[in-house]
Amino acid sequence: MSAYVPSTALIPRAEAGEIPSIARLISRAEAGLPEARPALAQIYKKAGRAHVIGITGVPGSGKSTLVAALAARLRALGGKVGIVAVDPSSPYSGGAILGDRIRMTELAQDPGIYIRSMATRGAMGGMARATLDAVDILDLGGFETVIIETVGVGQDEVEIAKASHTTVVVSAPGLGDEIQAIKAGMLEIADIHLVSKCDRSDANRTLMDLKQMLTLGAHSGPRPEWQVPVVGVCSFNGQGFEELVDAIQKHQHTLSTESGKKRRLSIASFRLQKTAENLLIERFTQASAALRPKLAERLSARDGDPYTLASELLAAALA
Amino acid sequence: MSAYVPSTALIPRAEAGEIPSIARLISRAEAGLPEARPALAQIYKKAGRAHVIGITGVPGSGKSTLVAALAARLRALGGKVGIVAVDPSSPYSGGAILGDRIRMTELAQDPGIYIRSMATRGAMGGMARATLDAVDILDLGGFETVIIETVGVGQDEVEIAKASHTTVVVSAPGLGDEIQAIKAGMLEIADIHLVSKCDRSDANRTLMDLKQMLTLGAHSGPRPEWQVPVVGVCSFNGQGFEELVDAIQKHQHTLSTESGKKRRLSIASFRLQKTAENLLIERFTQASAALRPKLAERLSARDGDPYTLASELLAAALA
Repeated sequence: MSAYVPSTALIPRAEAGEIPSIARLISRAEAGLPEARPALAQIYKKAGRAHVIGITGVPGSGKSTLVAALAARLRALGGKVGIVAVDPSSPYSGGAILGDRIRMTELAQDPGIYIRSMATRGAMGGMARATLDAVDILDLGGFETVIIETVGVGQDEVEIAKASHTTVVVSAPGLGDEIQAIKAGMLEIADIHLVSKCDRSDANRTLMDLKQMLTLGAHSGPRPEWQVPVVGVCSFNGQGFEELVDAIQKHQHTLSTESGKKRRLSIASFRLQKTAENLLIERFTQASAALRPKLAERLSARDGDPYTLASELLAAALA
Repeated sequence: MSAYVPSTALIPRAEAGEIPSIARLISRAEAGLPEARPALAQIYKKAGRAHVIGITGVPGSGKSTLVAALAARLRALGGKVGIVAVDPSSPYSGGAILGDRIRMTELAQDPGIYIRSMATRGAMGGMARATLDAVDILDLGGFETVIIETVGVGQDEVEIAKASHTTVVVSAPGLGDEIQAIKAGMLEIADIHLVSKCDRSDANRTLMDLKQMLTLGAHSGPRPEWQVPVVGVCSFNGQGFEELVDAIQKHQHTLSTESGKKRRLSIASFRLQKTAENLLIERFTQASAALRPKLAERLSARDGDPYTLASELLAAALA
């Protein structure tokens, strides 16, 4: 077992693109280690060059396969590509479920591609904070593109996809009603709509539906001056990926405009808020730990109500 | 337009089972109106009789149909049944997507069944708080059973299902790999495993897989002394529902034991923490609103890092 290298000492190594140091820093960010914070703070100030793509879609939409194919395509253009996959966690074990991500093992042979699966455990807001820290670390390590992949169900997961420069929402043909309805929560955040599995006969219907929705202006996208494209892809034969990369690059160019600056500002604002909430809850949880069992017992016995007892807990913890 | 009735004045009407008053109180809890808090506090202290069943499962598992069938079955036994469905929200419009819940309209004809779809919008922790408030309101209104239905993807959604007396996790045969993997995050919280769509030929495989998993002890459930049953149901012909109701009732009886008290205490502890976090973030967000844009601009310009600027924001807001 090697000695613990302080996080700040890992920075120059990560900056030189050394994968083991990058991986260690991400693990520490994920664990929320206070020791790592000064390093993550330094890294943030050094980072800011990478283009961050958020890709989200319902379970079963073929996101992982698609992300792998897109990464390979972007990689072929020259730059290094990082992937941060946000997976649902087990509430008990806290482990990432799709940790090995079988489909991506081919890609993993290429040193210019780094894939990282994040557990979504931890305190509220912790997932967003850790994911964005991981993006910075890859950014520092010279990854020109960083893809954040989220499952697209759950408020936090959708918000993270939104906290990227270019948000791609994946729809798949032929999913059931229940899944389609859930998808509706994500449609409005798309800078680019993607329809996966375009080899399927019903894919055209999904493409048409999305185009019609955009024409009706119901979900015209987060920025009025950007015409949200609808792109169909087929991951296994590469169809549509040229168009997708083209759309991503076009959207990337808009980031230098006035409205692009607004987008960056709104990402920063989200991040500031999440980091502050995270720190706040962390402090509160520590400060209230000793008092909580007693108040929980009173609540359980209905000797007091949630609001009054929570206020008591807050007052005691923040005193 | 009728005059605004103060929330505390709605309590006796809700207690008499008047649906419009119950609905209004739930809407106010959902909106997080400070005016409603004293009323919700009073309601909590009056409530505590209902048996709360959490039902969760991945999208496409047939949860809604199953919940409707279970509610009808419980209703036939005599008591009133309330359903609180937690739906993913649109991050922009904040509306509930499955608001009309077409499949449940038949049930809605029965005045002894009340179905409410909650939006999942709002501040962190707000969803859990509002959902549990809604459960109390139905409890006060004489609903003997309250079912909380959540989509089972996303940490908050799984946590809410866990904050019930009896947690039922729904698995469906024949879902894809991606969906099965996500499901893994929920398996450990089950008091009862349910396999839907038992008319399908591959349902038996799913039943066997779950039983084997339990035998191996990998996910033996949250309480060691409770033998987690695996029940197969078929919503359209009613097969298996007798067994399901039986399992729910058996589990309900365990709540009066020592370990059942622990379960109630852990629900109360979760609720105390969520309510406190909710109040804390609400206060912080208000107190920091004026300062946030300036700090977000500095963060966007990388003139400062998330941790330092968030600490600044916290210090200023809590001063």
